[in-house]
Amino acid sequence: MGAVRDVCVIGLGLIGGSVLRAAKAAGRTVWGATASKDDADKARAEGFDITSIDEALSRDAEALVVLAVPLPALPDLLRKIPKGTRLTDVTSVKGPVHDAVHRYAPEVRFVGGHPMAGTSRSGWDAGSDTLFQGAAWVVTPEEADDHLNDVMQLALDLGAHVVPTTPEEHDEAVARISHLPHVMAAILAAVGADGGPLAMALAAGSFGDGTRVAGSRPELVRAMCEGNRDALLMAVDDALGRLGAARGSLASTGGLAKTIEAGHDGRNMLVNQPQRTPITIDLTKPGALAALRNLGSRGGRVVGLNGSTATAETS
Amino acid sequence: MGAVRDVCVIGLGLIGGSVLRAAKAAGRTVWGATASKDDADKARAEGFDITSIDEALSRDAEALVVLAVPLPALPDLLRKIPKGTRLTDVTSVKGPVHDAVHRYAPEVRFVGGHPMAGTSRSGWDAGSDTLFQGAAWVVTPEEADDHLNDVMQLALDLGAHVVPTTPEEHDEAVARISHLPHVMAAILAAVGADGGPLAMALAAGSFGDGTRVAGSRPELVRAMCEGNRDALLMAVDDALGRLGAARGSLASTGGLAKTIEAGHDGRNMLVNQPQRTPITIDLTKPGALAALRNLGSRGGRVVGLNGSTATAETS
Repeated sequence: MGAVRDVCVIGLGLIGGSVLRAAKAAGRTVWGATASKDDADKARAEGFDITSIDEALSRDAEALVVLAVPLPALPDLLRKIPKGTRLTDVTSVKGPVHDAVHRYAPEVRFVGGHPMAGTSRSGWDAGSDTLFQGAAWVVTPEEADDHLNDVMQLALDLGAHVVPTTPEEHDEAVARISHLPHVMAAILAAVGADGGPLAMALAAGSFGDGTRVAGSRPELVRAMCEGNRDALLMAVDDALGRLGAARGSLASTGGLAKTIEAGHDGRNMLVNQPQRTPITIDLTKPGALAALRNLGSRGGRVVGLNGSTATAETS
Repeated sequence: MGAVRDVCVIGLGLIGGSVLRAAKAAGRTVWGATASKDDADKARAEGFDITSIDEALSRDAEALVVLAVPLPALPDLLRKIPKGTRLTDVTSVKGPVHDAVHRYAPEVRFVGGHPMAGTSRSGWDAGSDTLFQGAAWVVTPEEADDHLNDVMQLALDLGAHVVPTTPEEHDEAVARISHLPHVMAAILAAVGADGGPLAMALAAGSFGDGTRVAGSRPELVRAMCEGNRDALLMAVDDALGRLGAARGSLASTGGLAKTIEAGHDGRNMLVNQPQRTPITIDLTKPGALAALRNLGSRGGRVVGLNGSTATAETS
C-alpha cells in the first residue's frame, strides 16, 4: 500500500495553519476546516481549500487527518470522525488526548503528535510554512505500522525531526521543560512587580530573561498548563522541594552551593547535549515500537524514512 | 570647591576594570590596584597606571576612590583606607557594605554605589569602557553633599543614569529582580535535567530563556546571592508562597488563573514602564536627600548635574 499524501487539517490557528501551509509547500494535496470564521476567511484569501468540518472529514477516507484544535474542543470533534480515519493531532499534552480518542473515537487509527513550536502568538496570521524547520515533533504511537510511518513522514516533510515516546513520558517531560517554565516565569514576574517601581527600574538581564514567557497570552498558557495537570503537579512539587531546600540552607548556613551548582549542572546538560550517533531501525521487526520509544527516551530522534527503515540518531 | 576628577579604582575585574577604562575614556585621570597579578598585568599592558593598593590609596587624598572588590574582601581593604578619603563602591549589595564601612572605616566619606551591569563573565578581559552605557547606577547616599555629587557625576560621565535610594530599599529590590531570578533559574534547570535526556531533547524557548543565567559561574552567583541573605530570604518566601498557592489551586480546582494572570501583569509592569517626566532637584536645599531617595523609590532617576542642580526624570 502506498504512503498517504493527502492532508486534512481541522483547526487553523498557529499550529494548524502552519501545518496546512507547510504541507502544501511540501507538495501535498491539502484542505482544511475551522470553527473560526476569521481564520477560515484568511486561509481562503490565501488560496487554501477551506470547507466545513463535516465536509472536510468525509472528503477522502484515505487522507491523513490532523486535529489542531484546543484540548477542550476535542471530545465534540472526535465524535464526528468517521470510523477507520487515519488520525493524528498536534496538542501540547498527550495522555488526555489518547484518553479522549479511546473514549470518543475508539475505531479510528490514531498516532498522537506534538510539534515543539512557539506558542506566544496565535491564530492563522501567526503561522508560517517554516514553523517546524528544525523543531522536535513528538509522536506517541501505540503500534508501529504504516499509519505511524505516514505521520512521521509528514513531520519530516515539514522540516521537523521525530521524537517517538509514550504519552506518559511526553507529558512528564513537557511539564518540566515547557509548562513549569511558564509557572516559574509567572511567579518571578509577580514577585518582582511586588518590589514596586524601584525594582522595575532596576530590572535587567536576569529578570528580563526569566519572565519573558510571562508575556504570553494568559488563556493560552492556562490551557496548556491546566491540560497537563497531573504531570505539572509533579514538576511543581519538585520545584517546591528544591526551593524549600534552598530557603532552608540560606536561612540556616547562609549557603546556596547545592542549589546553584545543581542548576549550573542542569543548564550544562541542556547546552552540551551529547553527540549523536546515526543508527537505523527496521520498522517491520516485532520490537520496532519498543526500539522507537527507547530511542526517544534516550534523547534520540528519527531524521528520515526510507520505505520501512527509519534513519535515526541516538545519543 | 571644585568637583573631584581623579579616580582611583581598587579591584580590576569586570566592573572595576570597566570603571577604570570608562573613566579614562571620559577624560579623567585614573590609576588602579588589584590583588590579582593577572588582572594587573593585563591592565598595565593596555597602558593603565597600576600600582600597589597602599600606594594607590595614598597617592592623592582628594581623589575619588572606587572599591570594586568582592564583599568578603572589603573588611581588610577598608582598614587600609586613610581617614577623610572620598569613597564609593560598586558591590551588588548595599546594607552589608554600609555596615562594613561604618565598622572598619568610620572616618571616610562614603556613598554606596551599584551599577546594574552584567555579571556572567568576569575578570579584566570581560570589561569594556562602554559597559555602563544606558545602565542604572544605584547610589545610596547618607547625606546630600559635594561627595554625592562627585559620585553621581562619575556615573553620569560613564554613560549611566543614577538611581538614588536607601541601602535597604536597594537590597530588597535587587533580591527580587536579580538574585531571586538566579535562584529560580537554578531550580528550573535542575527540575528540567531531572526529566532526563528526553526532556533535554525537547527543551526549547521557555526552558532556554528561564535557565539562561544558570549558566553563570556558580561561585559568582553564590557570592552575589549569599551576600544579600536577609532580603533574598524575603523574596524566596514570597516565591514559595506563590508557588505553593499555585500548587494548591492546580491540585484542588485544576486552575492556574490567579498565578498566570498575576505573572502577566508583572511582566507588563516591566515592559510598559510609565512615561517619565523631567524635573529638577536643588541639591543645596535641606530636603534634597529625601527628594533624591523619593525619586528612586518611585522609579525615577537622575540624568544630569548642573552645578548643584540635578536634572531628573520621574514617573
